[in-house]
Amino acid sequence: MLHNDPIEHLIALLSRLPGLGRRSARRAVLKMLMDPDGQILPLAAALRDAASAVKPCEVCGNLDTISPCAICRDPHRDRKLVCVVEGVADLWALERAHAHHGLYHVLGGMLSALSGTGPEDLTIQPLLARIEQGDVAEVILALPATVEGATTAHYVTDRLKPSGVAITRLAQGVPIGGALDVLDDGTLAAALKARRPL
Amino acid sequence: MLHNDPIEHLIALLSRLPGLGRRSARRAVLKMLMDPDGQILPLAAALRDAASAVKPCEVCGNLDTISPCAICRDPHRDRKLVCVVEGVADLWALERAHAHHGLYHVLGGMLSALSGTGPEDLTIQPLLARIEQGDVAEVILALPATVEGATTAHYVTDRLKPSGVAITRLAQGVPIGGALDVLDDGTLAAALKARRPL
Repeated sequence: MLHNDPIEHLIALLSRLPGLGRRSARRAVLKMLMDPDGQILPLAAALRDAASAVKPCEVCGNLDTISPCAICRDPHRDRKLVCVVEGVADLWALERAHAHHGLYHVLGGMLSALSGTGPEDLTIQPLLARIEQGDVAEVILALPATVEGATTAHYVTDRLKPSGVAITRLAQGVPIGGALDVLDDGTLAAALKARRPL
Repeated sequence: MLHNDPIEHLIALLSRLPGLGRRSARRAVLKMLMDPDGQILPLAAALRDAASAVKPCEVCGNLDTISPCAICRDPHRDRKLVCVVEGVADLWALERAHAHHGLYHVLGGMLSALSGTGPEDLTIQPLLARIEQGDVAEVILALPATVEGATTAHYVTDRLKPSGVAITRLAQGVPIGGALDVLDDGTLAAALKARRPL
């Protein structure tokens, strides 16, 4: 009930998760309380397991139970190709799309005067170290198409240039399945500017 | 990463919660993994605490850490008034609205041939027992305005009638703030039929 602690505490913690408001957190808790052994205890155990087993990969920054992570260890991956992403969520998104067969590098943020994120907060130095070890031929900047993303891409490019590695970025344009009339002006302009011959 | 068990297992468990799809579960897990000690472990502990501390109230069926629950124990509640609800979620909703100052009775479901819920699956017998103990003067049926809700209300009324207790149900009509043109026909018809003099 509303007055007692363990339930309200659980609802408060759950409602902090992205995607769960207070209302859905309450519904979720209620549903779980109907079957504590089947739902609450397994979830509690899974949380503990994840907290103790998962750590960042010392090479690329991905989250995995082993370090270096499964991607960095995979002998079938193209080690010449390193895709630079802002965070692990973007890495997972690219993996789900099966779009990239090389390795990754998680920057850990975007340069932003507003949030006070400077170059020293990003893993640019470790990226340079990976390039200096010699294997990397191309760095693909898969950064968000925002002002911060563009600033960061610019800065990373400047830092990587002396190493002589090839630097590319994701194409910008109309999303697959995207209707033109609902697209923002910036995307339309970028797609028009980057038009390709048929 | 996608290939390893603890993260995928946690995502799978979380995405079973109402309101969380696979996508939001993934985002939630990722956010928690960024700060395991601050987010995952407290949530795991809160889940365990709730599972062990919370139990159904032996009188009304509400969920609480004590039984009888805080509402049933509250000396300021009107014991003559018992509000019958389908489930604990409805009880909590009424409590949040501060709309009812009596006690509650959780039926535990609605009669439904489709889902095979019969009278013996509901807590009608315990409700009769509460009435027979003599305190209850009025039973308010706060059941869903669905076919199952109406069937159940009808059945419960039949069972309670011999006890001589007053039986009422929630008013049906236009919701507060509701625009007429988006309301369904059934609600409009009910509101018109139950019109009140000004």
